[in-house]
Amino acid sequence: MILSVNEITIFLISISVLLFFARSFGELSRYLKQPIIIGEITAGIILGPTILGAFFPETLNKLFHESDGVNYALQGLTLLGVIMLLLVSGLEIDLSLIVRQSKTAFLISIAGIIFPFFVGFTSAYFFPKWFGIHDMEMHFIFALFVGTALSITALPVVAKTLMDLNIFKTEIGFLVIASAMFDDLLGWIIFSIILGMIGQHSSNNIGLGYLLISIFTFIVFVLIFGRKLINFIIPYLHKFTSYPGGILSFIFILGFLGAAFTEYLGIHAIFGAFIVGIAIGDSVHLREETREIIYQFVTNIFAPLFFVTIGLKVNFIEHFDFGLVTIFLLLAFLGKVVGCSLGAYWGGVGKYESLAIGFGMNSRGAMEIVLGTLALQAGLIQEKVFVALVIMALVTSISSAPIMSYFIKKGKENFGILSFLKPNNINFSNAVSKNEIITELCETISKNYNLNNEEILSKVLEREKSISTGLEKHLAIPHARINITDPIVAIAIHKNGIDWDSFDKLPAKLIILLLTPIDKPEMQLMFLSDIAKKFNDINFIGEIISSKDSKEIISKVKQL
Amino acid sequence: MILSVNEITIFLISISVLLFFARSFGELSRYLKQPIIIGEITAGIILGPTILGAFFPETLNKLFHESDGVNYALQGLTLLGVIMLLLVSGLEIDLSLIVRQSKTAFLISIAGIIFPFFVGFTSAYFFPKWFGIHDMEMHFIFALFVGTALSITALPVVAKTLMDLNIFKTEIGFLVIASAMFDDLLGWIIFSIILGMIGQHSSNNIGLGYLLISIFTFIVFVLIFGRKLINFIIPYLHKFTSYPGGILSFIFILGFLGAAFTEYLGIHAIFGAFIVGIAIGDSVHLREETREIIYQFVTNIFAPLFFVTIGLKVNFIEHFDFGLVTIFLLLAFLGKVVGCSLGAYWGGVGKYESLAIGFGMNSRGAMEIVLGTLALQAGLIQEKVFVALVIMALVTSISSAPIMSYFIKKGKENFGILSFLKPNNINFSNAVSKNEIITELCETISKNYNLNNEEILSKVLEREKSISTGLEKHLAIPHARINITDPIVAIAIHKNGIDWDSFDKLPAKLIILLLTPIDKPEMQLMFLSDIAKKFNDINFIGEIISSKDSKEIISKVKQL
Repeated sequence: MILSVNEITIFLISISVLLFFARSFGELSRYLKQPIIIGEITAGIILGPTILGAFFPETLNKLFHESDGVNYALQGLTLLGVIMLLLVSGLEIDLSLIVRQSKTAFLISIAGIIFPFFVGFTSAYFFPKWFGIHDMEMHFIFALFVGTALSITALPVVAKTLMDLNIFKTEIGFLVIASAMFDDLLGWIIFSIILGMIGQHSSNNIGLGYLLISIFTFIVFVLIFGRKLINFIIPYLHKFTSYPGGILSFIFILGFLGAAFTEYLGIHAIFGAFIVGIAIGDSVHLREETREIIYQFVTNIFAPLFFVTIGLKVNFIEHFDFGLVTIFLLLAFLGKVVGCSLGAYWGGVGKYESLAIGFGMNSRGAMEIVLGTLALQAGLIQEKVFVALVIMALVTSISSAPIMSYFIKKGKENFGILSFLKPNNINFSNAVSKNEIITELCETISKNYNLNNEEILSKVLEREKSISTGLEKHLAIPHARINITDPIVAIAIHKNGIDWDSFDKLPAKLIILLLTPIDKPEMQLMFLSDIAKKFNDINFIGEIISSKDSKEIISKVKQL
Repeated sequence: MILSVNEITIFLISISVLLFFARSFGELSRYLKQPIIIGEITAGIILGPTILGAFFPETLNKLFHESDGVNYALQGLTLLGVIMLLLVSGLEIDLSLIVRQSKTAFLISIAGIIFPFFVGFTSAYFFPKWFGIHDMEMHFIFALFVGTALSITALPVVAKTLMDLNIFKTEIGFLVIASAMFDDLLGWIIFSIILGMIGQHSSNNIGLGYLLISIFTFIVFVLIFGRKLINFIIPYLHKFTSYPGGILSFIFILGFLGAAFTEYLGIHAIFGAFIVGIAIGDSVHLREETREIIYQFVTNIFAPLFFVTIGLKVNFIEHFDFGLVTIFLLLAFLGKVVGCSLGAYWGGVGKYESLAIGFGMNSRGAMEIVLGTLALQAGLIQEKVFVALVIMALVTSISSAPIMSYFIKKGKENFGILSFLKPNNINFSNAVSKNEIITELCETISKNYNLNNEEILSKVLEREKSISTGLEKHLAIPHARINITDPIVAIAIHKNGIDWDSFDKLPAKLIILLLTPIDKPEMQLMFLSDIAKKFNDINFIGEIISSKDSKEIISKVKQL
């Protein structure tokens, strides 16, 4: 069977039109500082049955559906598009970042999967009618799917959002990226298992147990042995083959083979490409230039071709179900934001920063849509669920950046002076007098910031002489304005307490030394009142005093 | 119609296998310093009916033919592969280089098309049985095809050969590249017309006249207005869209649209992509980095997928016809090498350099195979002609570099000292004495090379005093060894002649001043005898003396 001249013409026009609309709307999104896939999917909705089909059904039919040959050729191309996209996403994942991740990132990931999964699964399991499910046989699997769909985070969109907000390399950025990677990995494993469970999708009818073992073996094999082998081979490729030709081909061949293998297992091809991508991306020998060529080609030519065809599949107006969209949006925000925020909070992140992380992790973007497309193809969900999923993915992605930005700003305002607190500015003191404690704190500061110790000490003592800085509830705030540009905070903990002439006659156990720039008098007043306001709970002060080290103090202070 | 899991698996395995073999053999070719397509096509012959099919027909069938879906998807992909290849080839063509080309390049191109076309056309027209043609209706069109097939030069292979020989930026390299571009352009136009003539291929059954007008309009429109428009748009793309995302998409969208248009006209899609590529590549705003990303991706992923499938089409052993292969090889070498060499020779290039150019232009490589594939698909040629064409393309490509290298070396040996002759070292003198001519020549040299005039003059005169340098037949070769690193040659023409104490008493009209490095005495002797040997024909000396300017002298001297 050979494509006719007519079919070739239509095929080429289809690709041109798809690419033109996808990229134009994608660039428009970028211009509006929105994730690019928003534009790419919108372009598809315009070219699909929703808009073009409503006005020019003949044109739509001619371009994308009439000929089997064109249809198959387009399918092959978009299939490669999504496989390449996942391969590139895999390349971006830094396994060692996940492995090295702190307790906090782990808590965020786990809570960020368990919560949404639980919320999604229970809702779908106990209230299947909300989702239009009447077939009780698919009931359980569908509930698993909803749980997974809510658990997924779109790594590429998250990374883009962090870059846009200029916080990619901050602590929050690090936490979000590491957690998103882990969520992505786990989410896809679960989804693969679900696909395996819907027997239909499988070509070889192996049992579920066998399937699980196969997936597990594949992951372990590729990520441990494959990764090492790849890392071993790449230098030889650089040495003996053309650059970048050799390594480019190597990456795609392995990616396609991995994809073919997982497709054969009955879990989707993209999963294999994703895992192979991780194994390759982890190699220290992979050059930035190689990544760049692949990344540019895939994200600008192949990925758009995939995303734009999303809109071709379904009529988004006809299958728009307001109730279902609302339910999915509510569940999505509830599960992911609450889960991740709690995880972050438990991990010692401040409350506003935790919320920022929660909304940062909420982007479903590309990954959700890929998953929805596969579920629709597998007959696991209906059009209206698909439409709701896509809309949920778009809304969570669009809302992520502005809300995250809001909470980061809020957190900074709230965190105030304490954001300047560093672990090495905290002393555990056994001093016998107020002056001795002040002397110790000033020495610490002058050492850490390379300042003139005598000047600081004389100014702080001078201020202390005029009127005592002892407040109520074991708190004292000695302070002074000196010749610096940024404020400095140091803390002394005195477990037994030192008399500080306080109103309530309680000895000072938590002593916070505050130095502010001499030319900004308003800053001193603002920070003093901020500290007084935050530390007006005697139990909280007690908790801080009982900390065993400075790290614990900082993590407690951050929870304010 | 949706690709089944089984079809997706086979599709992915097919691509992986094709890419793996194509690239591995391609790299092997590179290692053996052969054009890469040699390896890619060999890989296809191994994977196709010739080898794999002979031993494992089942595997071959399963991988590439069993499912219509897989078949169509692979066709779509390889179609895009060849379209992208021509788009990239177009990007590499420098229109202004062709426009600015000297008379010589034009002569090479024209003779390099007319000769092979004539040889091919007449052979096929008058001896159709040689080519296994019995259907006299196709007779004329087939003869046109053979003529065109012999006229084509493969620009990418030629460029690669010149780079390998390290003569890409020399005068010969320039001539070959400019001529190859022109030949490619003209060859494809002729072939497009032929395809249009075999009504079968056309989807719209427009008449030949109308077709010619359409092609002409398309070329003029794209290369004149399109080119300017593109050059105007690119800076805005750089400014307002992501880089390189925006420009990459722009190039492919335009390329695919151009391809769709020419496919619609009934001439093949690749022609449109090629012309659009030229128009885009000509823009001064197109960045090297953009070219590089496209080039790497296309030549390492897409082009190999196309070339490897060549071997899948035909059984190269079954359809190997020794007589036909011999005829094609003979005609190919005869037509192209003789044509281009004569063109170069007429254009004033030396005889060995002309032969080097002829063999340089002889590479048929990729382009011939694309053309053969299209002709096979269009039913214009049979399998055995296709096989002969492919073998001819491979042999001409492999033989090009070594033969070219041989003649360039030969030319250098032969050209000897005269390769150091520059136009501004040539004087037309009216001097009245031997000494005055020598003085003039020494002044010219000392000025052009910034040397000490007195030193040179004294040494040359000293030598002249010891014994006269006047030879027979109006020739004199004054000479000296001075403190330089490379030899210097200057010529004086004295139409009336000056007495130089020659054996044959004839006055010197052609005076060649030769300066050689003082530390290389052997060089002087070698060059002196070389000059004496070359200028021992009084008619030739007469011709040189009658030249009207120094450029004419150099071109005449080069024909030695």
